[in-house]
Amino acid sequence: MLEAELIEIGRKAKEAAYRLAAASTNQKNEALLAMARSLEERSDMILTANEADMEAGRAKGLSNAMLDRLLLTPDRIREMAEGLRALAALPDPVGEVVRMWTRPNGLQIGKMRVPLGVIGIIYEARPNVTVDAAGLCLKAGNAVILRGGSEAINSNRAIAGVISMAAANAGIPEGAIQLIGTTDREAVNIMLKMNDYIDVLIPRGGAGLIQTVVHNATVPVLETGVGNCHVYVEEDADLEMAQRIVLNAKTQRPGVCNAMETLLVHEAAAPAFLPAVAEALRAKGVELRGCPRTREIVPDCLPATEDDWKAEYLDLILAIKVVDDLEEAIEHIHTYGTKHSEAIVTSSYKKAREFLQRVDAAAVYVNASTRFTDGYQFGFGAEIGISTQKLHARGPMGLEELTTTKYIIFGDGQVRT
Amino acid sequence: MLEAELIEIGRKAKEAAYRLAAASTNQKNEALLAMARSLEERSDMILTANEADMEAGRAKGLSNAMLDRLLLTPDRIREMAEGLRALAALPDPVGEVVRMWTRPNGLQIGKMRVPLGVIGIIYEARPNVTVDAAGLCLKAGNAVILRGGSEAINSNRAIAGVISMAAANAGIPEGAIQLIGTTDREAVNIMLKMNDYIDVLIPRGGAGLIQTVVHNATVPVLETGVGNCHVYVEEDADLEMAQRIVLNAKTQRPGVCNAMETLLVHEAAAPAFLPAVAEALRAKGVELRGCPRTREIVPDCLPATEDDWKAEYLDLILAIKVVDDLEEAIEHIHTYGTKHSEAIVTSSYKKAREFLQRVDAAAVYVNASTRFTDGYQFGFGAEIGISTQKLHARGPMGLEELTTTKYIIFGDGQVRT
Repeated sequence: MLEAELIEIGRKAKEAAYRLAAASTNQKNEALLAMARSLEERSDMILTANEADMEAGRAKGLSNAMLDRLLLTPDRIREMAEGLRALAALPDPVGEVVRMWTRPNGLQIGKMRVPLGVIGIIYEARPNVTVDAAGLCLKAGNAVILRGGSEAINSNRAIAGVISMAAANAGIPEGAIQLIGTTDREAVNIMLKMNDYIDVLIPRGGAGLIQTVVHNATVPVLETGVGNCHVYVEEDADLEMAQRIVLNAKTQRPGVCNAMETLLVHEAAAPAFLPAVAEALRAKGVELRGCPRTREIVPDCLPATEDDWKAEYLDLILAIKVVDDLEEAIEHIHTYGTKHSEAIVTSSYKKAREFLQRVDAAAVYVNASTRFTDGYQFGFGAEIGISTQKLHARGPMGLEELTTTKYIIFGDGQVRT
Repeated sequence: MLEAELIEIGRKAKEAAYRLAAASTNQKNEALLAMARSLEERSDMILTANEADMEAGRAKGLSNAMLDRLLLTPDRIREMAEGLRALAALPDPVGEVVRMWTRPNGLQIGKMRVPLGVIGIIYEARPNVTVDAAGLCLKAGNAVILRGGSEAINSNRAIAGVISMAAANAGIPEGAIQLIGTTDREAVNIMLKMNDYIDVLIPRGGAGLIQTVVHNATVPVLETGVGNCHVYVEEDADLEMAQRIVLNAKTQRPGVCNAMETLLVHEAAAPAFLPAVAEALRAKGVELRGCPRTREIVPDCLPATEDDWKAEYLDLILAIKVVDDLEEAIEHIHTYGTKHSEAIVTSSYKKAREFLQRVDAAAVYVNASTRFTDGYQFGFGAEIGISTQKLHARGPMGLEELTTTKYIIFGDGQVRT
């Protein structure tokens, strides 16, 4: 029953994707602008639906942080609309010929960007993801199947209804934007195996959600999110710069995946660096947990355990370890890191090069904050998430990462001998 | 027990991959040359092992085609060694910076190719895949876990023993090339779920093997192989060229995935084209199965059923359908094709363009044989398979497709505001 409904959604999405692939850039942009207008015009209806979710959330005892993620306001709806307008202004990735070459037999071969097809997005409480994901998928020529969290079901239904109707009225094939309207958890399990209807799944949310999807899906997954990021301060680092980077990486926005979780400090730099940086971090409300050598220098620091080296706190907590040298720093990152974003602060050309070469992560920095790992900061103009896997896309994913390629081959009668 | 053994193999591979990523191009090339030499020097031992497989195969009643795939000869061993030497001569994809740009804040961001990590290859009877896959993975800096077919177990053990020892002696980390030595089928099921140890799985073989892997693996898969390819002859085609392409696409090597399985002909071209092409195909031993309109023109043609439009014959059989126009041809390909290789023969600029834009396949051809979909023919110098999926790689996969990228970011103290 549920499975049949989902397969029908999948079939419609597949059909829509086939037609959408042929849509012009103008058609897609006009639809994005119409979706933006419609969101603003119908914001009262969306806010009413959101109020129902907020009430249910309060009754369920959701935390204030959760309730804030769930909350929509006229300003937040305006931001969602602006996000769609910004997408309309970006270049269309579809149709770009990445490269083209000619073979000795005269065959001319080009590699052209085309949409992926049908993208499934599985996400949690934030209703803005509904707009965001639908807009990104549409701009890249893909149909999308949205599965939001049950806490936001009324908001998501209202938003998806508004934007899918606006898109259809602007000539986008029906079925290009679909929301799974039920909160039945079984729907996710079915989605994970819909290989014939969904080309890619992108989970967006906490580690639990992502691991459930990665370990159960047979549909290809773009894994996003978990970041246990390090900043390593070398003995020769500019300590003023190091402090600025450490403070930024930990405190500018601690709840996100590219925030630093562990600080590594060369033993020769530790005595001069740690007392000042500890004071500055504490002034920002950061709790410090250090290795024994750290605690000799910062006596009132809590002891760090094995679990601290593994932790993605997403909070104002920092683990600190003093290391012997670059080698130990790289080994520590290899052992405990999640291959997300890793930084070194150094004035040594040789050490910068070695860190860049040897550290295996989506983004490896010299003398900059890990907080830059972001589609907007990288200049992509948009972001669907930050991939922590190696296949297809690694690091911030923008519109290009929502496409695949096909080879186009121009001949004049060539046959193979 | 078996699971513990496989996890130990995975752990070793992961460790080897970490070290191998730092290996220089020279080290990898020297290892490839040493592997080639070692294969030739120890060919007697390999041939003896192969004879045991051949005997067991004959006793089991394997078909002659299967036995031929299994057979090794001094010439075939020399070819495998030459393949490794050719790999050594190719450029190293690792370390290439695909592009680099500077942000307004002065951050310089580069996208650098790095190895994928650990690649699992699951394959069937051909023992040459053992050498081929190990060489490709090594050149791209990846550790490989090989799981061959049980028919070739003695050959594979001998070959893997020789090349992994030669690689280790040349300084490649132990564990970089490992074969799963058991023929227990359960080993494949375990491999499919080893997300913590294997970064990518590549199945190489028949449709049954590939579907088993795709539908059961939680490790990311690069799907290869199945091709129901079409050639469409437009009303305005150069019929002499069309016949040359059709004959080549069907008969030059019918047992491969890029061979044509269905011929589509515009109704206006059919009366002039079909009788001659039918005669030429039959002269090459091709059995023809046509739609009713085809059978009016080629009376002794067998009737085609729905199954024929879906079939990947991999044999000297061809389905033929007369269509009303380009639209019907594209719809037929959309309905029955497997998105592998599709060709149009036309003299119309507009129709060529429309076919190229609208047909969704790994390779779309104008006026050339579908048989060119191949890493060597495309100029990649090597091939690990032909991807028929959309994520990561689509079409022929060479060394580049065995890599991922990481962002390297050069700053001078930038923090995020």
